[in-house]
Amino acid sequence: RSGEMAKLTQLIDNEVFWAYATYTTIVLLKMMLMSLITAYFRITRKAFVNPEDTASFGKGENAKKYLRTDPDVERVRRGHLNDLENIVPFLGIGLLYALSGPELYTALLHFRIFAGARITHTFAYLIPLPQPSRGLSWAAGYAVTISMAYKVLKTALYL
Amino acid sequence: RSGEMAKLTQLIDNEVFWAYATYTTIVLLKMMLMSLITAYFRITRKAFVNPEDTASFGKGENAKKYLRTDPDVERVRRGHLNDLENIVPFLGIGLLYALSGPELYTALLHFRIFAGARITHTFAYLIPLPQPSRGLSWAAGYAVTISMAYKVLKTALYL
Amino acid sequence: RSGEMAKLTQLIDNEVFWAYATYTTIVLLKMMLMSLITAYFRITRKAFVNPEDTASFGKGENAKKYLRTDPDVERVRRGHLNDLENIVPFLGIGLLYALSGPELYTALLHFRIFAGARITHTFAYLIPLPQPSRGLSWAAGYAVTISMAYKVLKTALYL
Repeated sequence: RSGEMAKLTQLIDNEVFWAYATYTTIVLLKMMLMSLITAYFRITRKAFVNPEDTASFGKGENAKKYLRTDPDVERVRRGHLNDLENIVPFLGIGLLYALSGPELYTALLHFRIFAGARITHTFAYLIPLPQPSRGLSWAAGYAVTISMAYKVLKTALYL
Repeated sequence: RSGEMAKLTQLIDNEVFWAYATYTTIVLLKMMLMSLITAYFRITRKAFVNPEDTASFGKGENAKKYLRTDPDVERVRRGHLNDLENIVPFLGIGLLYALSGPELYTALLHFRIFAGARITHTFAYLIPLPQPSRGLSWAAGYAVTISMAYKVLKTALYL
Repeated sequence: RSGEMAKLTQLIDNEVFWAYATYTTIVLLKMMLMSLITAYFRITRKAFVNPEDTASFGKGENAKKYLRTDPDVERVRRGHLNDLENIVPFLGIGLLYALSGPELYTALLHFRIFAGARITHTFAYLIPLPQPSRGLSWAAGYAVTISMAYKVLKTALYL
């Protein structure tokens, strides 16, 4: 049992790991941006969910009317949740994939498609672009993650 | 201060890490499956949330009636969120646990219970099975994660 | 191209990695606590979302009245989702940061502020404290994560 994983200590010092670090940081920063966009829409649309957030608008009914949902806020929140659902698998599977000894060229291809797909997905969701823009960008990120999972299981399967 | 963690470079080349890689990939793939099940129910139940997703059903009121919530869609979404809430801790704590030098037998026991618990949880949620099926499968995964966290803190505590 | 990342095999055996393991485990356990608090409020407020969860209250209308939302339950759930949105970036970026060769003092500062900010955020959300308590504690964790991301990209950028 001395597969690719055995060479991990060498592999981790290499460009594939640097590439993983770079693209993971980029997609996580992109995901974090969704919090700021949500806050921006909550403030400009005056649509809050916590009573303590509307206290500066006065008391009683005057503040209460800002406790409401807004379509733009909800749209950003859905995009944020979709990021979580897709970037969490990338975070875990991508790390294991980077440690499974892929070719640099192949690894970069996977990471770049994933990052490009998630950035496109955000634009498709927020503008919004007509379908199937959002669907296809989601599917591209999903397919790339499945491909990396396949490589991990082929290299490291230990049940 | 030369505890178990100090031997990390050797440990990472071993079967515990391979086992972590395998079970993490399995539970992340299972979580990703929830996206496909959500899409399946949205399409078969014709229950969408984004106006651009109903454009193919025509314009105006004709398309608008498909912008609705459906109990089956919401159920899958709750299962998906529960996965996120429980698999994210496993992803992080499990990795640190795998690097903390556990016995292979003990580690496999933890990983297998966690993966089995989450798969059972999904069936219990989606069928749905009567309680306490869902509650117990959730608790099994939760308990195993706490047990791994205890081992990590015992090995690596550095405040 | 032999930057800080190249020394990874040594770095991983060190106190920065131990500190990362400790603080990550703490914030993930804190996040897991949100599940228990949600369950506590669901049971004490008798506010459930799945019909199978109210079966023990009897059948028909008698059980159905407990299928409702409760402001306290929803508040904890929002805090839980906010944890996911912020702790997932910390999990990934923090790991890469720990591997990027920071000074121990600087790394501890980052990890401690993050953990303190997330714990404060939970108290601010659940009590709730008047704003800007929740906003500031959220911003502190966010800023620290950005700072770590900057260090990772400065060390490992490989596009």
